[in-house]
Amino acid sequence: MASAFELTILGSSSATPTVNRNTTAQLLNVAERFFLIDCGEATQIQLRKYKIRFQRINHIFISHLHGDHYLGLMGLLSSFHLLGRINPIHIYSPSGLKEIIAIQMNFSGTNLCFETVWHELDTENPKIIFEDKILTVETIILNHRVPCCGFIFREKEREFSINKEQVIFYGVPLTQMVNVKSGQDAVLNDGTIIKNALITRGKQKARSYAFCSDTRFDDRVIQGVKGVDLLYHEATFMHDLLERAKQTYHTTALEAGRVARLAKVWKLIIGHFSARYVDLNPLLAEAKTEFESTFLGEDGAIFNIPEQPFGRN
Amino acid sequence: MASAFELTILGSSSATPTVNRNTTAQLLNVAERFFLIDCGEATQIQLRKYKIRFQRINHIFISHLHGDHYLGLMGLLSSFHLLGRINPIHIYSPSGLKEIIAIQMNFSGTNLCFETVWHELDTENPKIIFEDKILTVETIILNHRVPCCGFIFREKEREFSINKEQVIFYGVPLTQMVNVKSGQDAVLNDGTIIKNALITRGKQKARSYAFCSDTRFDDRVIQGVKGVDLLYHEATFMHDLLERAKQTYHTTALEAGRVARLAKVWKLIIGHFSARYVDLNPLLAEAKTEFESTFLGEDGAIFNIPEQPFGRN
Repeated sequence: MASAFELTILGSSSATPTVNRNTTAQLLNVAERFFLIDCGEATQIQLRKYKIRFQRINHIFISHLHGDHYLGLMGLLSSFHLLGRINPIHIYSPSGLKEIIAIQMNFSGTNLCFETVWHELDTENPKIIFEDKILTVETIILNHRVPCCGFIFREKEREFSINKEQVIFYGVPLTQMVNVKSGQDAVLNDGTIIKNALITRGKQKARSYAFCSDTRFDDRVIQGVKGVDLLYHEATFMHDLLERAKQTYHTTALEAGRVARLAKVWKLIIGHFSARYVDLNPLLAEAKTEFESTFLGEDGAIFNIPEQPFGRN
Repeated sequence: MASAFELTILGSSSATPTVNRNTTAQLLNVAERFFLIDCGEATQIQLRKYKIRFQRINHIFISHLHGDHYLGLMGLLSSFHLLGRINPIHIYSPSGLKEIIAIQMNFSGTNLCFETVWHELDTENPKIIFEDKILTVETIILNHRVPCCGFIFREKEREFSINKEQVIFYGVPLTQMVNVKSGQDAVLNDGTIIKNALITRGKQKARSYAFCSDTRFDDRVIQGVKGVDLLYHEATFMHDLLERAKQTYHTTALEAGRVARLAKVWKLIIGHFSARYVDLNPLLAEAKTEFESTFLGEDGAIFNIPEQPFGRN
């Protein structure tokens, strides 16, 4: 069965929200694991609007402590509490967020009914910050005005998919299954070797998504996201405002497209649009001059990375 | 010219927002002075949605430090900053909010480009906390789980309205105008006395609005809001959940109606509805059994206190 790798954009505005665009937040569903990436003001309202059962979120990744990337966290945690959450929540963030939340819980007299596990991010050195059976999350160095990092969600190498009928036909014993799933041939009880290709459909390609929240155009970002399938990169301004972009540690749509082209990704999503742009199509057109497969990450947009056909590599 | 006394409801949900109801925030316009009362998450989005030019707000009153009453403040202040605000903003709140904002400004590396003037509220002793030429704001004792107070906005006694034609007709000197506006007769240069009623239209009644955010049903609240024109009172639950209301320091719709009846107000607005209620009409009907002139304070609702006809008292 195909497993999900689906991104929902919850907010696409930079700095201040507009009537139609909330500030940054995204929900990534990898095989029914729900990851919240950034959490701008009113994220909990967006989650409700898009009918996402948000108690299923167990991991929240905050790229940096500018309000448009985390102000919704306090309200979301409060709602988790009021709705009787049981599961712990893991929060990954640069230093400071724990204190920001603690002081607010203190003044509101709230003792959360679930555990909050804080993971402080080292924004200078990329590393794996989360790992489970099927995926890893690692940080990406970004270049912003305050400590800030991006995140890459990578599926682990997929297992070879067993062809049950063939396994029964050849009489492959259950004890061989771990080896077969890892790509090895099977050895029957009588010593006969059955080629892996005869009893599996091959394996699917591991998928990856990189989130680059707020950053200047920077070669380290290109290196960090090299070859991912789906790339989200901020594109706050049009390129005519390049100086403004540099000054505010942001990227232009043209530069975002260049990152995607040089990093050889599959698809680019742009977002974090300045409130000055009502029509986003010029930003899209500009990014496309560098990288054709670019899409607008508008509020409510959904992007899937489909399973690839079974292969042998 | 009639001057405005207009209340816009920006949020009507208790605790957690719903898709259709934001958490508590209200905007009061008294003669083009804009007061923000509470500031739940996404208040800045609501202000935009209802096309309120929010840089005109110079005074923000926060009743207590539960998230559903103040979480939007940080985003609003940030937007003031990003939009180049110049005027100082005055914030009235129980102890703690200044630190909550300061720690966040610190981690985001923000030095606001306008002055923030903090006024710490004494929630135990009602007093006048703001006064200008035309109105006062005073606190109301409420009964909630954390330090919490309500606010009464009262116009000062209005001046007698000069009837210009009559003033010219009788030749009343300009030096007499202060006395005449205060209700006294005029004395002409030759000593002739001109009755006030001949040269004024009388005066209009001073108007008042009381905001009771989160509280148990409490006799002190009734005493505090006695005789105001417009009363907002929370009505979190239906009366069948009275025990739940008491336990969580809230009021039922029936009790809110009772407060309005016993305080002899003109109109009652109920709000702060539990997310469990999709249809609010039963809450309205319940409050009306105690006080007929009750209205639902739903998001976007606008309530005016019109000028009264000119009178002599």
